[in-house]
Amino acid sequence: MLKKYCYDGSRKLDLKSVPTNSKSDHVDKKAILEKTAENQQKIHQLQDKLYADGREGLIIVLQARDAAGKDSTIKHVLGGINPQGVDVYSFKQPSGAELAHDFLWRFNRSIPQRGKIAIFNRSYYEDVLVVRVHKLYEKYAMPKRCIGKADEFFKKRYGHIVNYEEYLYDNGYRILKIFLNVSKDKQKERFLERIEQPEKNWKFSDSDLAERALWEKYSGAYEDAVNNTATKKAPWYVLPADQKWYTRYLVSKAILEVLTDMDPRYPEMPQGQVDRLQVCKEQLMKEDKKAEK
Amino acid sequence: MLKKYCYDGSRKLDLKSVPTNSKSDHVDKKAILEKTAENQQKIHQLQDKLYADGREGLIIVLQARDAAGKDSTIKHVLGGINPQGVDVYSFKQPSGAELAHDFLWRFNRSIPQRGKIAIFNRSYYEDVLVVRVHKLYEKYAMPKRCIGKADEFFKKRYGHIVNYEEYLYDNGYRILKIFLNVSKDKQKERFLERIEQPEKNWKFSDSDLAERALWEKYSGAYEDAVNNTATKKAPWYVLPADQKWYTRYLVSKAILEVLTDMDPRYPEMPQGQVDRLQVCKEQLMKEDKKAEK
Repeated sequence: MLKKYCYDGSRKLDLKSVPTNSKSDHVDKKAILEKTAENQQKIHQLQDKLYADGREGLIIVLQARDAAGKDSTIKHVLGGINPQGVDVYSFKQPSGAELAHDFLWRFNRSIPQRGKIAIFNRSYYEDVLVVRVHKLYEKYAMPKRCIGKADEFFKKRYGHIVNYEEYLYDNGYRILKIFLNVSKDKQKERFLERIEQPEKNWKFSDSDLAERALWEKYSGAYEDAVNNTATKKAPWYVLPADQKWYTRYLVSKAILEVLTDMDPRYPEMPQGQVDRLQVCKEQLMKEDKKAEK
Repeated sequence: MLKKYCYDGSRKLDLKSVPTNSKSDHVDKKAILEKTAENQQKIHQLQDKLYADGREGLIIVLQARDAAGKDSTIKHVLGGINPQGVDVYSFKQPSGAELAHDFLWRFNRSIPQRGKIAIFNRSYYEDVLVVRVHKLYEKYAMPKRCIGKADEFFKKRYGHIVNYEEYLYDNGYRILKIFLNVSKDKQKERFLERIEQPEKNWKFSDSDLAERALWEKYSGAYEDAVNNTATKKAPWYVLPADQKWYTRYLVSKAILEVLTDMDPRYPEMPQGQVDRLQVCKEQLMKEDKKAEK
């Protein structure tokens, strides 16, 4: 089921033709909820091994339009996992110091140590999304040779992202990139909820409507981003996001698949160290005997 | 004079055939000392503009064998520069947390903001030098797919370094890479000085002799590193290092050339802001009149 949502460079994404809900998958909600819970259990077990193993790290990039469910997906799919092995980074507008550096600088600082999972709630992909739609790059304090025409600028940037992800892959990381694909109608419905329910008001801002008005421009930017950066080493998953129970299932499935493929193992101790454990055991047992006397 | 020491990918370096002293350049020491002082003055002026401009940053990578003069070069060539605009990072053995990340991670954290100069006293090139000579990569806690055979491992690593430097170039940085090329005889002479002069003892360690014994292996590693990573965007300078006065001249010349090419300028204010300056001036002058009354 997940494969149909995967983009690894072998085909192009056309957002208009991909589902934003579960209809085309003919699934049973009850069965899906059960499977999601099973996946979560397996994820917890694999995460424990991943941390003990420490040879490979996982970076989960989450991108989406407003109200597509990024925060609630993180909360529900990875809630209950051992927080020692997982870091979540929410990237908002860059600071002055961040803007004065290369665009990957602030993300690179948050690359997890191997053995850990990092979730990037928004990521360096914003540098080819919001930066492109709002033409923010035109005002960057950089030499002319670095800016030039939009097409060239973003083509280079896609290339640098592909190189960066390949570099991370070669250095012991997996990168799982997820785009939560919400429909325009569903976004409207969720925005209205945020306006009507006082405890959700904080999630809404005037500017969300301005971004919504640029729906088509963002569609183009997302398609170009996916089509220029989807690779076998760092694939994109474009997941339907209109039904949270289904989104959560698919996200849990995607994480479970990559963790299974990573195949983390508890470190095997060399025989010398295993023998040593017996010596340590005997030493501990002697303590009891002494105490008994 | 500098051009003969520059490697930008158009020819190969063979360490045996390049000079470690000034003989082949037929220079006059007194004239060189004067020129070095002139270069330093010009560097100070350009650094001031670079900082004010803020559109481009400079990363100077300094690599060398022990006792080739890295520290004293930094001290003498860049001593006197405004320290606000220059950061020096000396990279020693990586920490446990650093080893648990991708190899560029710790260096990337030290990329300067644009407008500044960073000096890397040793750098990510150690990851294809000491790591190669001592086969440290074999013990890295990484999945098998990331390690493989030495040739493949380092070929990939050179490629990632080239991509990284191109990425930095495209994002507003210049990278000047300098190898201070000392002869084996001169290293011996300087080691003996460090052993005989008590105030220099701290600079010497037993392990320096172990590294010296690997002279040829390091030569091969340096040649491969330069030949696989020298590009027009990030050239290498292989500078004779047996005479400090000459090394300092060449390093000052290399820095001056790249700064001149960067052509930093004090920001031009838009007319509106220039007009505003006059209003501010008048306001300040009024204060005096009030005080007189």
